Amino acid sequence: MSDSLRVGVLTGGGDCPGLNAVIRAVTKSLILRDGAEVIGFEDGFEGLIEHRARTLSYRDVSGLLTVGGTILGTSNKANPFDYFGRDGADVSDEILDYVREIKLDALVAIGGDGTMSICHGLQEKGLNVVGVPKTIDNDLVGTDRTFGFDTAVTIATEALDRLHSTAQSHHRVMILETMGRYAGWIALYAGIASGSDVVLIPEFEYDVDEIVRVCRKREQGGQRFTIIAMAEGAKPIGGEMAVLKVVEDSPDPIRLGGACHVLGRALEHHLDSEIRTTILGHVQRGGTPTPYDRILSTAFGEAAARCVADQNYGVMVALQNSQMATIPLEEVAHKTRTVPKDHEMVRAALSVGTSFGVPM
Amino acid sequence: MSDSLRVGVLTGGGDCPGLNAVIRAVTKSLILRDGAEVIGFEDGFEGLIEHRARTLSYRDVSGLLTVGGTILGTSNKANPFDYFGRDGADVSDEILDYVREIKLDALVAIGGDGTMSICHGLQEKGLNVVGVPKTIDNDLVGTDRTFGFDTAVTIATEALDRLHSTAQSHHRVMILETMGRYAGWIALYAGIASGSDVVLIPEFEYDVDEIVRVCRKREQGGQRFTIIAMAEGAKPIGGEMAVLKVVEDSPDPIRLGGACHVLGRALEHHLDSEIRTTILGHVQRGGTPTPYDRILSTAFGEAAARCVADQNYGVMVALQNSQMATIPLEEVAHKTRTVPKDHEMVRAALSVGTSFGVPM
Amino acid sequence: MSDSLRVGVLTGGGDCPGLNAVIRAVTKSLILRDGAEVIGFEDGFEGLIEHRARTLSYRDVSGLLTVGGTILGTSNKANPFDYFGRDGADVSDEILDYVREIKLDALVAIGGDGTMSICHGLQEKGLNVVGVPKTIDNDLVGTDRTFGFDTAVTIATEALDRLHSTAQSHHRVMILETMGRYAGWIALYAGIASGSDVVLIPEFEYDVDEIVRVCRKREQGGQRFTIIAMAEGAKPIGGEMAVLKVVEDSPDPIRLGGACHVLGRALEHHLDSEIRTTILGHVQRGGTPTPYDRILSTAFGEAAARCVADQNYGVMVALQNSQMATIPLEEVAHKTRTVPKDHEMVRAALSVGTSFGVPM
Amino acid sequence: MSDSLRVGVLTGGGDCPGLNAVIRAVTKSLILRDGAEVIGFEDGFEGLIEHRARTLSYRDVSGLLTVGGTILGTSNKANPFDYFGRDGADVSDEILDYVREIKLDALVAIGGDGTMSICHGLQEKGLNVVGVPKTIDNDLVGTDRTFGFDTAVTIATEALDRLHSTAQSHHRVMILETMGRYAGWIALYAGIASGSDVVLIPEFEYDVDEIVRVCRKREQGGQRFTIIAMAEGAKPIGGEMAVLKVVEDSPDPIRLGGACHVLGRALEHHLDSEIRTTILGHVQRGGTPTPYDRILSTAFGEAAARCVADQNYGVMVALQNSQMATIPLEEVAHKTRTVPKDHEMVRAALSVGTSFGVPM
Repeated sequence: MSDSLRVGVLTGGGDCPGLNAVIRAVTKSLILRDGAEVIGFEDGFEGLIEHRARTLSYRDVSGLLTVGGTILGTSNKANPFDYFGRDGADVSDEILDYVREIKLDALVAIGGDGTMSICHGLQEKGLNVVGVPKTIDNDLVGTDRTFGFDTAVTIATEALDRLHSTAQSHHRVMILETMGRYAGWIALYAGIASGSDVVLIPEFEYDVDEIVRVCRKREQGGQRFTIIAMAEGAKPIGGEMAVLKVVEDSPDPIRLGGACHVLGRALEHHLDSEIRTTILGHVQRGGTPTPYDRILSTAFGEAAARCVADQNYGVMVALQNSQMATIPLEEVAHKTRTVPKDHEMVRAALSVGTSFGVPM
Repeated sequence: MSDSLRVGVLTGGGDCPGLNAVIRAVTKSLILRDGAEVIGFEDGFEGLIEHRARTLSYRDVSGLLTVGGTILGTSNKANPFDYFGRDGADVSDEILDYVREIKLDALVAIGGDGTMSICHGLQEKGLNVVGVPKTIDNDLVGTDRTFGFDTAVTIATEALDRLHSTAQSHHRVMILETMGRYAGWIALYAGIASGSDVVLIPEFEYDVDEIVRVCRKREQGGQRFTIIAMAEGAKPIGGEMAVLKVVEDSPDPIRLGGACHVLGRALEHHLDSEIRTTILGHVQRGGTPTPYDRILSTAFGEAAARCVADQNYGVMVALQNSQMATIPLEEVAHKTRTVPKDHEMVRAALSVGTSFGVPM
Repeated sequence: MSDSLRVGVLTGGGDCPGLNAVIRAVTKSLILRDGAEVIGFEDGFEGLIEHRARTLSYRDVSGLLTVGGTILGTSNKANPFDYFGRDGADVSDEILDYVREIKLDALVAIGGDGTMSICHGLQEKGLNVVGVPKTIDNDLVGTDRTFGFDTAVTIATEALDRLHSTAQSHHRVMILETMGRYAGWIALYAGIASGSDVVLIPEFEYDVDEIVRVCRKREQGGQRFTIIAMAEGAKPIGGEMAVLKVVEDSPDPIRLGGACHVLGRALEHHLDSEIRTTILGHVQRGGTPTPYDRILSTAFGEAAARCVADQNYGVMVALQNSQMATIPLEEVAHKTRTVPKDHEMVRAALSVGTSFGVPM
Repeated sequence: MSDSLRVGVLTGGGDCPGLNAVIRAVTKSLILRDGAEVIGFEDGFEGLIEHRARTLSYRDVSGLLTVGGTILGTSNKANPFDYFGRDGADVSDEILDYVREIKLDALVAIGGDGTMSICHGLQEKGLNVVGVPKTIDNDLVGTDRTFGFDTAVTIATEALDRLHSTAQSHHRVMILETMGRYAGWIALYAGIASGSDVVLIPEFEYDVDEIVRVCRKREQGGQRFTIIAMAEGAKPIGGEMAVLKVVEDSPDPIRLGGACHVLGRALEHHLDSEIRTTILGHVQRGGTPTPYDRILSTAFGEAAARCVADQNYGVMVALQNSQMATIPLEEVAHKTRTVPKDHEMVRAALSVGTSFGVPM
């Protein structure tokens, strides 16, 4: 084993459908094509810092393709440059010492924006890193798609489909809050896929009056219900407190619950219809990935293994123009891809009559 | 048309998967077997009071089997004995006049506890009524199952399945709040179906310390996550305010959000693990019914049509001992079927290690 | 360990969703409540004959609830009274010696008709046996339901739902052949759940002319498609060869493919419409069980463990009148429960206009 | 109405999930943005030839997004240049006369290779045509994706997932035959998504001995089952008859059933394992589209409407480099996109140990 390639794998950040599928593909590829030894670190960078590692055999990763979650565990608090486990100390040098000690040739890190930023920092210090883009939010720059997104959109769409029939029976306004703090991709895509009447995302501040107008216009047209797909980061023009001050008629209202509750209170104030809200939460992050995400995860895993074999380090694998590609980590780190106003999916949504809660 | 049977149909109470399937079966049966004319009333008893009626043809109800919601609309506020549309007036006499006027031979009312109670009242006044038991909560007396329940359990189970993998990856406590204000059937069945570690239902007051013990014991056994399925009506021993006073260390805490938020706050106080909560809400009420519910709805619809043909009035159709049966409305009205401590599904849950949050 | 209960578990016959869920519930119950040692035999009675056994711990069966198949493996060829592995020898005495040798107190055998018949034979010879009723076909006597049936019906219904839209677009006759050689429960229930126009089952011989009439009548009514749900054991009046002789205009036609191909050829002969056939096959037997089946499997497993603890041997656990019960194995062995003509689900199907391919 | 845009829509070729979603998006876009009148032709070009047309209003297409099939009906036999309804006559001139007569400004035709070829022919004769690429097979040139493909892959993957657990329980070889006569995209993608052990597609002739080797090697490695995903057009080296001659030991064997039956017979001849085959057939074409396909269909529909508004005729809308684009019909007509040997998904499959039934 002395000369064989030794490659570490870890998963960082929030849970995401497809993590196990990537672990499986990276491991199988490295073992089958390169005869490599693959070592998994537990709970993201925490395992790398605390030396919690184990060898991953071909057999260990068999059957993982459809399994939600990550067999390695993950953590979204373990930043080696600011390690909460040691009062914010920079433990990156220790990591590099450890990596040299265990003769690791390279590290494949599967994660989102935070993980890619850490990868970039470690690469700068001399570690050979390959990143794999993971986030249900699809808000990483440099790749057309991240794995997990299709599954999250599918789950949110199924929920919106179900709310649709209930709204119709009861003549209600139904608000579903999806994940998406800074980028509205999930709400946008699930909104289109479900034919939602209103889509609210962090990128476009919404106008309560405009949404009231939509609901009323639908009612006048004989459709006595409205479906609203809303990202958790969507905000009204002027801010949530301003809206709450008006609807609560209070100089100091309490801001409770999620974004959907603020909007729900505002609509209750203006409309006669009943309003119902649902926050899907972590249900969007778990469980079996869709076939699309299993395939993308497998392709990403294979591409990452190839990067290691080719010593193409300091990069993140990516889907660009429907093909596997790589992009330097420095172009990815500390950035978020948000929905631009002229995006063709915004246009597609507008074309079928969807409102973004603001004239566009 | 002069001599043919004229039968009204309405759907009352909250939305429920299978309503359309019952409407279809009642209508098709009555038309095919009895050559009846079927008249649908809109928005539950509201349509009966406000004379919003339309004939339902065989064609009108074709293709409805898989469609969520109710094409007739529903209302859970229209009680003829206490009509909100007229400041709580008793409009039941008007209904009887109207029914005589349009020469209705019988009314098939599809609904839950509230609807059956109204049916009983109208029956007492001389209307020929047949009830069909609908509630996702499965808490009607007299029937082993209501339609909609299997679908609600399936949706809640899918959500718990998804939370399972995420909890495992992150070593978290995940709480899913299901519907069930007075009866815990959905949480109990979905808890068993998903292998949840803790099931909390309104029938058994839970002890926060017991749940803390379960979580800790699992962690000591190497399973660093816990899944809790919780009905919206589940309450801690001593009441929610008592729990909040302790964990908020305040004589006057604010009680916010759902039942799961109270428990979540309490567990955060006692455990190091991260806690995450999800309220599925109306997602449990909507969309395509499961095959089980489509079949049960069809059988109920056929049975109700047969009651009309047999002039077997004043009854609710029911599933008893795996067979269609009927039960007098007076035995159903104003009652709720809750989970008894010695129910065999409670025993089944206990046998695989599930905790009910209290020693049993 | 000397005094603790030692219980064997095996799964026999064809694969079935819920097998793992039963193994889990039996094992957990026996360990938690009785401190028993549980021993799994591999590949049904084959493992019992060939001494392929392993202890099942609580941990071994954790997480099995949602997993399709059986971790123990199964075989539908290993009959101890007629063992194919030894040219049809009776090896039942060897099994009894072995069971005494390893000090097994009881055996829980999960299987269908064949397995229950073997269990009955072994019980007669002195083995303590508890049976658990498994078959996707739901054709065991003594129990209202077997686990696996709800899942098979769900899968067949989903396929019929999909064929429905395609038939509509193309004005076609679509035939789906489901499992069910001797009993038509799957085709009947999936037929009702999907609103199929024709349901053909082994219990009622069908008349090709009647089906042709149904298709033509639908076309005249403006619905230019027909959906047929057909059990693999459904046969035409007079037999398949008689039908083939007519449509092939040959004294000696070749009978090829499944039951659906015979019907397909016959309909092609009489109708202008295009005919399309699908045989779902083993897809109906695999994968994650529905929540309903997971719950039933768990309840059966707990009930079987209770039988062992109560030394209630020679029985099969059963669902009777919506409750757990037991029934002597001798009442179950060598029998098949078929669909009677006056079954209420037949009546329900007829009431919504479904044809059974023969006047009823 | 005199000056408003008048646009025809039709759907041609085989059924495909997403057809209704495209009809909805085209119609809504044209009405909302351009105030156009939209006219739907029934059953593909047949309706255009036989003057079966009806206006589509905004309301007509509401709620269609999730509905499988096509409300317009389709036909895969109605070629205006070779019309089966008139013994193969060229009726294209009549179509042009009719189109002028009803003052149609443009035609949006949603279909596959055949439809696009017809569109090209009509365009050449002066009709203003915009094509929308539809095929579950994903084998159209000029677009990275066609709608319907993701749904077909999802359905095939679910079936393979189910067969997986059954194969494991029984130690069997399971063959699933998917659609794909000339191109193997569905089998390739579903094979990767399900972790199938062998993927057989029309593009690479397979070697029975190689597949036998794979099954044996898996068995030696302790995995006593093999999953094979196979396109209907996959063929063995030397042709099917050559294989059948060997395994049937007959100079004149009969070739029956699907491609999977030929392979099944061959494997039975060489292996002790039981072999089971399933042909999914038209189940892959029907039912609710996946969220991915609903979004793609909506985007295609909007793009086609934009082409009409921009008088950008003679083109097919396309997905290129993750963006909406157009491509001249002449570059699309009479061509099929097959799987190249160096495609990155072939590489991804190989990297996780998948065999293509031939050394690569």
